[in-house]
Amino acid sequence: MVIFSQGDEVITGATVDTNAAYLADHCSALGFDIIRHITVADELDDLVQVLQDIDEQADICLCTGGLGPTQDDLTTEAFAKAFKTELIFDETALVMMKDYFAKLHVDMPALNRKQAYLPADSTRIDNHWGTAPGFVASGKNCLFYCMPGVPYEMKNMLETVVLDDLRTRFTVEKTTLVTLRTMGMGESAMQQEIDKLALADDVRISFRAGLPENELKLVFPHGANEGEMHATVNRVKEVLSDSVFAVDGLGQSIKSLPAYVSQLMQNKGYTLNVLETLSQGDIAQQCDSKYLIKSTVFPQVSGIMSSFALLGVSIDESLAIKIAKQEHASTAATLTLVQLYEETASNETQIFIVVVDGKRTLSASKTIQGRIERKRTIASAAALNLLRKYLLNS
Amino acid sequence: MVIFSQGDEVITGATVDTNAAYLADHCSALGFDIIRHITVADELDDLVQVLQDIDEQADICLCTGGLGPTQDDLTTEAFAKAFKTELIFDETALVMMKDYFAKLHVDMPALNRKQAYLPADSTRIDNHWGTAPGFVASGKNCLFYCMPGVPYEMKNMLETVVLDDLRTRFTVEKTTLVTLRTMGMGESAMQQEIDKLALADDVRISFRAGLPENELKLVFPHGANEGEMHATVNRVKEVLSDSVFAVDGLGQSIKSLPAYVSQLMQNKGYTLNVLETLSQGDIAQQCDSKYLIKSTVFPQVSGIMSSFALLGVSIDESLAIKIAKQEHASTAATLTLVQLYEETASNETQIFIVVVDGKRTLSASKTIQGRIERKRTIASAAALNLLRKYLLNS
Repeated sequence: MVIFSQGDEVITGATVDTNAAYLADHCSALGFDIIRHITVADELDDLVQVLQDIDEQADICLCTGGLGPTQDDLTTEAFAKAFKTELIFDETALVMMKDYFAKLHVDMPALNRKQAYLPADSTRIDNHWGTAPGFVASGKNCLFYCMPGVPYEMKNMLETVVLDDLRTRFTVEKTTLVTLRTMGMGESAMQQEIDKLALADDVRISFRAGLPENELKLVFPHGANEGEMHATVNRVKEVLSDSVFAVDGLGQSIKSLPAYVSQLMQNKGYTLNVLETLSQGDIAQQCDSKYLIKSTVFPQVSGIMSSFALLGVSIDESLAIKIAKQEHASTAATLTLVQLYEETASNETQIFIVVVDGKRTLSASKTIQGRIERKRTIASAAALNLLRKYLLNS
Repeated sequence: MVIFSQGDEVITGATVDTNAAYLADHCSALGFDIIRHITVADELDDLVQVLQDIDEQADICLCTGGLGPTQDDLTTEAFAKAFKTELIFDETALVMMKDYFAKLHVDMPALNRKQAYLPADSTRIDNHWGTAPGFVASGKNCLFYCMPGVPYEMKNMLETVVLDDLRTRFTVEKTTLVTLRTMGMGESAMQQEIDKLALADDVRISFRAGLPENELKLVFPHGANEGEMHATVNRVKEVLSDSVFAVDGLGQSIKSLPAYVSQLMQNKGYTLNVLETLSQGDIAQQCDSKYLIKSTVFPQVSGIMSSFALLGVSIDESLAIKIAKQEHASTAATLTLVQLYEETASNETQIFIVVVDGKRTLSASKTIQGRIERKRTIASAAALNLLRKYLLNS
């Protein structure tokens, strides 16, 4: 399989190509062997050449980009030229586009008609989130899935159509992917702990470093015994201890820390009130509006201190607890979460976080380094992680 | 120029390839024409084949990854095999690696010796941030710059050595890029307007659809007349009218709407107080903590209505103005921004936004469709855009 991205914005580096990783991640999890990622600019001859090269190298190609309405969108034309096929006007595609614009109360610009031309003998992939339909079509040897470059349109097509189609057309020995979602432990530290376990050779291990979450992926071979898989996952969880906050796979599905917290909050029917500082609205962003009643954001900690008439008082975990209790007395929410911070050294910030419900209090502090965006992200994730721990013990 | 990334973690999608975009961005800014990004896995024969293909296609190739100490690091070996050259042991590289480990108070593992073997006739690129030295070496036609895949090691080599070396060896005809940052006008609608202008053939036009901003890029050829470039940009701005909020290039540098608003706020020395609803903390996220005093987030509009004892009152622009004036009376900030919303139809939300300073009031409303993440992003951008307009007229 080849992953093929098209577009000036990717080739010039104006955009990081997250589509390629997203597609590769899903397809390698299904057991497909990915041999290349290729990106080219919006140049017709170059596109034609690359499509023909891919056709010789691979059985399957997932393409993104170049399906838009403007003159620099050339994938469909290049496909037709590369494999000497015609472009046929697809009435249904036009109707869907018109519906899309009608919902936006906008007349469809004439240019968009171009997007309804698809290669002869191709199968349209409907786009429910934008205008450009995708298509599946065969070259000489290779099957091409062409999707838009806009990430959410591409993801929607992949998840609703392309993955199923791949599973139907190709027999892949389905492996089992289990993702351990972790926070606060680096890739090499995890690797060292896991090396000690001497896991079976047929368990493939990979890491995906992210912020604030790191993922550890275990891929078990086709036909692996379920009991043994559970046992292996538990051994790994044990050595990574507190840094694992969720397991995704083997019957559990937890896609992120915010999703997990949301599930716990809604299961208990709780609501939340937040006072946030360093994370500057990111806690509010990460919470579901189903349970978040209110978040008051003071980007500078002095704002919260002055609001509680505490200017000059030294900032620490006990002060955060005091503020949380006082704030909780004035809210109808089940829980109140408070976050304070203090610059402790050059480029170093300490955060103090508290969750209270009127009876029980859980608090923590944490030192964060790095750029402000990094600090905000970690500050917000640490708050949600504290909330998760609170909920698991309540 | 070709950008070449190597590594299983990139090919399987475990890691997003941010190196490729970083390298491409720096080199296209220097005027190099990037024709491909290619990624392959850690397979020797495949690497050899790709290196030979690149050698036929391009004059310059920037490679990342595959220089590490482990068995899956194969770039140097593949280079030697592809171009029938020897690997020579580099004593200086070994000394530098030993120094590196000494600073960490760790003995150098025997495995790392491998990293001191470099192709004959290559020039070493010192690595001050890790163990793997890079190298510059010629294939038959193409000059290869091989760097480690660890982003900060690669960036350090690029910025301290590679970019200078590129500038010295190659004369590039520098083009001029002007980006018009727009909001609220689709790609095809912009294209239609621009087609009417019949711009000169040597001005290259491309679009970059994003949310909430769309970019229209004009690339003027080397040596283009500055007055004519300004005139062209002004003609384009005129036909796109109100949707252009900033021009980046030709002496101006505005990277985003939040950056522009931040600049305007700080030039005037203003501070801001926010009441936000639908955007759920995203306005706070987009504002700079230098001027944002406080944002109160009520994810549900009922929260704000109940807080102002207005439950049951119908929600519209005039109510938003009323709330903004009341809220502004209780803040020390120069400006208050208020955002209300109402679900007007299935999947459709109307937002009402107001900026007040005690004397002057500017308000707007807007209908938004789509997924909740899309609505939030647009709601927040519309608020910042109103703030921009307010600031430009104050």
